[in-house]
Amino acid sequence: MVKLTEEMKTAFSKVKIFPVATASKEGVPNVVPIGFCQLVDDETIWIADNFMVKSLANLEENPNVAIYVWGPETGGCFQIKGKATIISSGEKFDKMKAIVNAAKPGLPAKTLIEVMISDVFQCAPGPEAGKKLL
Amino acid sequence: MVKLTEEMKTAFSKVKIFPVATASKEGVPNVVPIGFCQLVDDETIWIADNFMVKSLANLEENPNVAIYVWGPETGGCFQIKGKATIISSGEKFDKMKAIVNAAKPGLPAKTLIEVMISDVFQCAPGPEAGKKLL
Repeated sequence: MVKLTEEMKTAFSKVKIFPVATASKEGVPNVVPIGFCQLVDDETIWIADNFMVKSLANLEENPNVAIYVWGPETGGCFQIKGKATIISSGEKFDKMKAIVNAAKPGLPAKTLIEVMISDVFQCAPGPEAGKKLL
Repeated sequence: MVKLTEEMKTAFSKVKIFPVATASKEGVPNVVPIGFCQLVDDETIWIADNFMVKSLANLEENPNVAIYVWGPETGGCFQIKGKATIISSGEKFDKMKAIVNAAKPGLPAKTLIEVMISDVFQCAPGPEAGKKLL
């Protein structure tokens, strides 16, 4: 696992919608926009699953996740890869549900996807695109 | 293959940056923001590869692509899945290169990724999320 730098964490905090990509075990990719996606520490992302269908089915058979961090205020773009654990009860789950319900009452908050970050890549256009940063 | 509706084509035309997801044949997803992504007809997308590394390596071993269409002006979100062909010479390639060079001289425009659309899914939040539209 790797730890995001302070600069990466600041960029992450400025993004409102993250493209979250998963894949079936046969390698069919899926990508959806996710609002409830937050860092809980330097190396862990929590994604609240409110309406996931294919993403969740993919994660049940293949834990690999990719997300890019980019927006008008990020000053660049990087891609995070990691492995997800699906959590549907317990203390972490309850905490995620409370966060979602406080922000938008009525959302189902049906599962917590906890992603441990394994790699970070440069994702801004240019000759350095694709370079492993962490 | 399926044909996008007029409403979908209008939404597509309003997006400036598309999250393009691919996966390795082992199912490791990758997602990158792509600006040169355009419809050439109702069922075909052209993506200009300027700086692709992992995306191109994935497509060389696994043609599956996923893209979502969403932005401030789209009035919703849908996800497109399709299969890519990598084109690096010939009439289509030359046409893509001319489009890229006219818009941003100096970009490498090293490959054309031609995606034939196979499926379209609802991707806006809510109980219909994930539903197959086409």
